Amino acid sequence: MPDSIKELTAAIANFSDRRDWQQFHSPKNLAMALIVEAAELVEHFQWLSEQQSLELGDKQKHAVSLEMADVLIYLVRMADRLNIDLLQAAEEKVGLNAKKYPADKTCGRADKYTSYQEDP
Amino acid sequence: MPDSIKELTAAIANFSDRRDWQQFHSPKNLAMALIVEAAELVEHFQWLSEQQSLELGDKQKHAVSLEMADVLIYLVRMADRLNIDLLQAAEEKVGLNAKKYPADKTCGRADKYTSYQEDP
Amino acid sequence: MPDSIKELTAAIANFSDRRDWQQFHSPKNLAMALIVEAAELVEHFQWLSEQQSLELGDKQKHAVSLEMADVLIYLVRMADRLNIDLLQAAEEKVGLNAKKYPADKTCGRADKYTSYQEDP
Amino acid sequence: MPDSIKELTAAIANFSDRRDWQQFHSPKNLAMALIVEAAELVEHFQWLSEQQSLELGDKQKHAVSLEMADVLIYLVRMADRLNIDLLQAAEEKVGLNAKKYPADKTCGRADKYTSYQEDP
Repeated sequence: MPDSIKELTAAIANFSDRRDWQQFHSPKNLAMALIVEAAELVEHFQWLSEQQSLELGDKQKHAVSLEMADVLIYLVRMADRLNIDLLQAAEEKVGLNAKKYPADKTCGRADKYTSYQEDP
Repeated sequence: MPDSIKELTAAIANFSDRRDWQQFHSPKNLAMALIVEAAELVEHFQWLSEQQSLELGDKQKHAVSLEMADVLIYLVRMADRLNIDLLQAAEEKVGLNAKKYPADKTCGRADKYTSYQEDP
Repeated sequence: MPDSIKELTAAIANFSDRRDWQQFHSPKNLAMALIVEAAELVEHFQWLSEQQSLELGDKQKHAVSLEMADVLIYLVRMADRLNIDLLQAAEEKVGLNAKKYPADKTCGRADKYTSYQEDP
Repeated sequence: MPDSIKELTAAIANFSDRRDWQQFHSPKNLAMALIVEAAELVEHFQWLSEQQSLELGDKQKHAVSLEMADVLIYLVRMADRLNIDLLQAAEEKVGLNAKKYPADKTCGRADKYTSYQEDP
């Protein structure tokens, strides 16, 4: 099992290289492929209630996990093509969010959360 | 820096808990938030040529990295809420893809690649 | 007011021509722009309950209407660029759906509805 | 053939009523369904060049037209559920865009166009 993003990145690059698919993997195209996979994830939940979405059966949960894998695969591939360190970017973003949504002002408040939703 | 998906998962769970946001984080809602972030990523590339998408300036590349971080954050949060092991799922998916797209039949062939595109 | 898709198509074509934007309006790019607008629509609803989504205040309802307009504008523009008759396609699709989901077998059944959801 | 958005709205409402599907058609759920259809449209173009996306064969063009129909169907259904006049909203949005992107300042300028892309 790839135990880190780095190993996954290498496995996917090797997979693409052996098929000579790098020519299709521009960031523009990969962004499209990524959102298509994200939509296949959304599709599982579109007619479920929020509560139902928390109580998936084993079969659907497995299908959902493979859709999430697809999103991760394209995300990792895109980061590789752009030479971006995904985990470092995530660390930076978590830090920015901590400043933007101070815990004492946003704790348990749906309105605060909602009012912030349009910020990136 | 979180050096693994596991650490990132814990950091995001802690962040949400301190703000009492778990109530909003149903998989249904998180899938919506994830695709919204994926679209913010797509937006950076919509009017660029494929070549331009490979040659981002530093400022835009940084902005793109933060959008990718947002996708990863919601993906990791969703996996946590559904008790899914993201990296294990990715390993499984890479294995399935290797069987589905045999390297000797798909090497360097855009038509093969394209004809496969509608498979999940 | 444009009282038909046809008038809207002409207004948007004229708008684009006056700005010499046709060069950017390949179907590939327009599909990206369309999904970005669809995501801005999704963003309004991501933290709302289903019931709340039915009870928007006037201000949010107006904002939602403008996001929906953006989706329609790109859809109409794309149809124009591909020489597709949107309303004729919609008529064809409604007919196909009527055969696919016979009213007597799907009436009031969430399970039937859900089981059909992965069909196109 | 429905010759207007109004007729299409009525046909879709009738279709849903006969199947008792209104219970699933909250704006939140419809926004999810709409973006899923938008992604099926994106999928057709993800590995094509911009030029190829302008030169679809008859079979693919027909498939694309039905995906576009799906987007329109959910858009029209959502407008109906929210009591929004889609064409009026589109007219308003075209007017707003005309002010925001003055033709004399944006004509033929990719940079201008791009710099505006993050505006709604």
